[in-house]
Amino acid sequence: MSKLVECVPNFSEGRRFEVVAAIEAAGEKCGVKMLDRTMDADHNRSVITFAGEPEAVLEAAYAMILEARERINMEGHHGAHPRLGAADVVPFIPVSGVEMAECVELARRLGERVGRELAIPVYLYEEAATRPERRNLADVRRGEYEGLKEEITRPERRPDFGPVRMHPTAGAVVIGARKPLIAFNVNLGTDDMTVAKAIARALRAKDGGLTFVKALGVELKERGQVQVSMNLVDYRRTPVYRALELVRLEAARYGVPVVGTEIVGLVPLDALLGSLEYYLQSESFRREQVLEVKLHA
Amino acid sequence: MSKLVECVPNFSEGRRFEVVAAIEAAGEKCGVKMLDRTMDADHNRSVITFAGEPEAVLEAAYAMILEARERINMEGHHGAHPRLGAADVVPFIPVSGVEMAECVELARRLGERVGRELAIPVYLYEEAATRPERRNLADVRRGEYEGLKEEITRPERRPDFGPVRMHPTAGAVVIGARKPLIAFNVNLGTDDMTVAKAIARALRAKDGGLTFVKALGVELKERGQVQVSMNLVDYRRTPVYRALELVRLEAARYGVPVVGTEIVGLVPLDALLGSLEYYLQSESFRREQVLEVKLHA
Repeated sequence: MSKLVECVPNFSEGRRFEVVAAIEAAGEKCGVKMLDRTMDADHNRSVITFAGEPEAVLEAAYAMILEARERINMEGHHGAHPRLGAADVVPFIPVSGVEMAECVELARRLGERVGRELAIPVYLYEEAATRPERRNLADVRRGEYEGLKEEITRPERRPDFGPVRMHPTAGAVVIGARKPLIAFNVNLGTDDMTVAKAIARALRAKDGGLTFVKALGVELKERGQVQVSMNLVDYRRTPVYRALELVRLEAARYGVPVVGTEIVGLVPLDALLGSLEYYLQSESFRREQVLEVKLHA
Repeated sequence: MSKLVECVPNFSEGRRFEVVAAIEAAGEKCGVKMLDRTMDADHNRSVITFAGEPEAVLEAAYAMILEARERINMEGHHGAHPRLGAADVVPFIPVSGVEMAECVELARRLGERVGRELAIPVYLYEEAATRPERRNLADVRRGEYEGLKEEITRPERRPDFGPVRMHPTAGAVVIGARKPLIAFNVNLGTDDMTVAKAIARALRAKDGGLTFVKALGVELKERGQVQVSMNLVDYRRTPVYRALELVRLEAARYGVPVVGTEIVGLVPLDALLGSLEYYLQSESFRREQVLEVKLHA
């Protein structure tokens, strides 16, 4: 568990299992560990999660983009989710022992190589973006595959690497680096959506809440409850405990209790330990005190 | 991280580093991971912590007892800590994916083999004890090496395995199985020892507190504070959060705040996750959601 980078590439194939399996296998050969895979037929899109040492993750991402280029033809692709290419988005995420700068460097190195060797135009986004207007993925993906074919020669849409024309079957790819994202939901002991919405507003950055929180009110019809559904996009600076305790504080003004919470999907150990240290008022805890961490060190 | 057993053998050598290193090396060859080592010259005793798959841990423990038998002569051994033999105490501890019954079985298999092949008398203790009066280590070790030489032929002191006479240089060994122990200290915002002692009494099992808590009041002179120093001997049934929150509750009656806590040494991941789940009011958290756990699965 020395240097650990996570990579969560999205591919424009959510129906043919053998294609997604081949892409996954191409990455697995590079010595990374596959952690999760979701395929969505409506979106016609797959999300693969894997992790490993930085260099192995770089090689795996390259091999998977190459495999996707060989097997996915964007000319025949339809799905509900916006996309630019066969391999659509490839973010590197620092998990432990790695700084964001190292993931940005991985993104740039991968982008340069994909542009040069695979003849696919590459856009860098989020922390790896080369200009402010390319930080946001939705902005980079504007017009999707079909639209970008026309616009790629415009100065503001020139790729960061690779040819200034779409690859005839694989389109373009967006590569970048971002922080780990934690999907954290807090269930409330009421069915009143106005309460969930009010608390979501109080929590989220854009309405005056916590800087690295995105939040929505959600109805849980079967439970007769409502939920504050959050994305914590920088758990080091806006940790889980702070989001939860602020929800609790806001809910109290309505006399509404927190009845439970859930973390969706994978979460880095450091995010959990950080919040536990708050609650335990730890003075000197080190992650190496976790027996399993020491064991895999 | 499938099946994981920890083993914390104690050896009657705390001065000659090369002896302890040789014992450690003998174990390491069996495919376990060494996690910690403490040597104490006054006690003339070493404690080695290692972990691995059950069979590897069994083989390593055997190899280390054999090595200790070859290198340590109890006839010349002096130290402040009570002891019966060269390899003195060998507990197996279930960490993850393993039940206590499996560790008891490991203890019995190791004991049988050590008695038969190494000609060392073996006593089983704690969860592996064959009679109630041998559960407590202090009772098994009564009289120490010198005393047991005389008493070993008495019916109540007959070993569970091996010869009914002390090994001429290695003495006897106590082998068993126990739960992981968490050393957890809570620091209080006062220098009043009567408060620390009162809270320790309220917390510990023998005075009406929590069943699996041992607690003492301790003075932290340099800090001008006092501490409730606890051993949590079954964190599943008496978890960390319950001990901490009960200290907080008792301290409140004296108007004394908890100013910080510390966990000493290694702690199993499940113990931390269990307490975090309490504070987060988790409804459905699974340890496989920890990215690093999934990675090493």
